[in-house]
Parts: sequence; C-alpha cells; structure tokens
Amino acid sequence: MTCGVDHKEGDAFYMRHALEEAKEAYRDNEVPVGAVVVCKGRIIARAHNLTERLKDVTAHAEMQAITAAANFLGGKYLNDCTLYVTVEPCVMCAGAIAWAQMGRLVFGAPDVKRGYRQYASQALHPRTEVVEGVLAEECAELMRRFFQGKR
Amino acid sequence: MTCGVDHKEGDAFYMRHALEEAKEAYRDNEVPVGAVVVCKGRIIARAHNLTERLKDVTAHAEMQAITAAANFLGGKYLNDCTLYVTVEPCVMCAGAIAWAQMGRLVFGAPDVKRGYRQYASQALHPRTEVVEGVLAEECAELMRRFFQGKR
Repeated sequence: MTCGVDHKEGDAFYMRHALEEAKEAYRDNEVPVGAVVVCKGRIIARAHNLTERLKDVTAHAEMQAITAAANFLGGKYLNDCTLYVTVEPCVMCAGAIAWAQMGRLVFGAPDVKRGYRQYASQALHPRTEVVEGVLAEECAELMRRFFQGKR
Repeated sequence: MTCGVDHKEGDAFYMRHALEEAKEAYRDNEVPVGAVVVCKGRIIARAHNLTERLKDVTAHAEMQAITAAANFLGGKYLNDCTLYVTVEPCVMCAGAIAWAQMGRLVFGAPDVKRGYRQYASQALHPRTEVVEGVLAEECAELMRRFFQGKR
C-alpha cells in the first residue's frame, strides 16, 4: 500500500495553485492564465500572464514560470519538474517548454485556437509527459468569463 | 528615380548589426545568434543569445529584442518593425514574433534542425513578411565555427 497523494490528486492540488494565479491575472484585467512549476513536491515558481501590464507579448505565465524555476534551481534544464498551467500553452510557450526539457506538462483547458497542438504538435521535447484536462472546466470558465466581459 | 538604400541593401546593412551581436555571443561562449529590431530606419533594440549566462532557455536573441523593442515603443505590437536575426528562429521565437505581429522578419542562415519551419510552418502571423538568406553564409559560418569548437 502506498501513502501520500497519487498523481491525479496531486495534479489537481497543484492546478488549484495555478488557478489562483490565473484569478489574479483576471483581477488585473489580463487574459487569465496561471502557472506553477513543481519540483520534488515543492512549488518553486508561480506566475500569471502579465502581457498587458508589461506591454510585452513574451510575458506569458509559462515563460515567467520557466525563467523563475531555472533561476531558483540555478540551471536551465527542468527535467525533474512539472509545469502546471491552466490553459494549453501556445506555440511560443511550447517551444520554451521544449528547450527546458520539462519533465511533465499538465494543463487544464484546451485552447483550440491558439494552443500549440494546432500549429506545432511535435514542438515539445519527446520525453516530456503531457497530461491534459485537470480542472479543465474551472480553467475554461475563467477564460470564458474574461472574454465575455470584453464584448 | 528613388534615392536612399533599397530593401536589399538595407537588409544587409541591418543584418551586419545583428551579426555584430552574434559575434558578441560567440565571444561569450554562447550559441552565436544576434538580432536587431528596426523601426522607421532606426535600430530600436539589439540583443544576442544569453541562455548560458542567464541559465534561462527563454533568453534567445529574438525574445530579448522583442521585449526591448516593445519597451522602447511603449506598446506590445511591432507591426511597423522589422526583426533581423542571424539564424532562422526556433518555434518559441516564431511564436513570440507572431504574438508581436511583427511587420517583417529577415533572417540569415536557415536552421534545418531547430528552425520553426520544421515544426510550425504556420506559426507566424499571416501578415508578417518573411525574407531569408541575407548574409546567410556569414551567419552560418559563425554557427559552424562555434559548434566545431565544441567537439
């Protein structure tokens, strides 16, 4: 018998932290995407989209989380890490996830318009394990609410 | 009769500045890629690859140049700008170029292994004009020399 949380429960736990980040983005009138990086059971980086505040298209949650995690670890490869992000990464972020050789990528809602799978399904590192759909409905609902408010 | 440099001469002129950046990367033992962003005939950003120094996979020349250009202009869209980069951008950088709605992309050497066209040929914004092969041999030679030195 094993003790502790299994992957599925653990994934939902960390995705809630990513969702908290996404909600912070929402409150700041940013496209509500949040991310955390987890290494050996510990959150080592957390970030949310800041493209409007920084006026910088590269300031996606994932990009900042990858930079912060590498900074924390003192090395640019994140093989032992899992990136949790509330929405399927775009092409840019998928490229960064590949360069970082991320161990696992767990995302919530799919993004059929801007998600990397639409443009570059082979963009990730072949060893990166991908899990989708964790708290997908909550992650998607936040995005829907944001874009409805924009119309 | 028109006066001033035509596009082709102008492209080589600005690519030389990108090459200067790439040479600086080479001297710092970084993969030698350099980039400049030009807006209305003026270089508004210049950068070279800093992934080793910063221990950050996102610190590609193009990413930094895009961030710096947006910062200079005070807006995240770069429709009126041209990005000159010595080597074909990777998937990550192509994604950033797309989000920035870059007016033109001019690159030197192709990158058959890591270039965006291999993975995500549709990743760029449809309105971004792409020119390749400007000072291609010089740009490629610097990369060859770098990787030969690594063996």
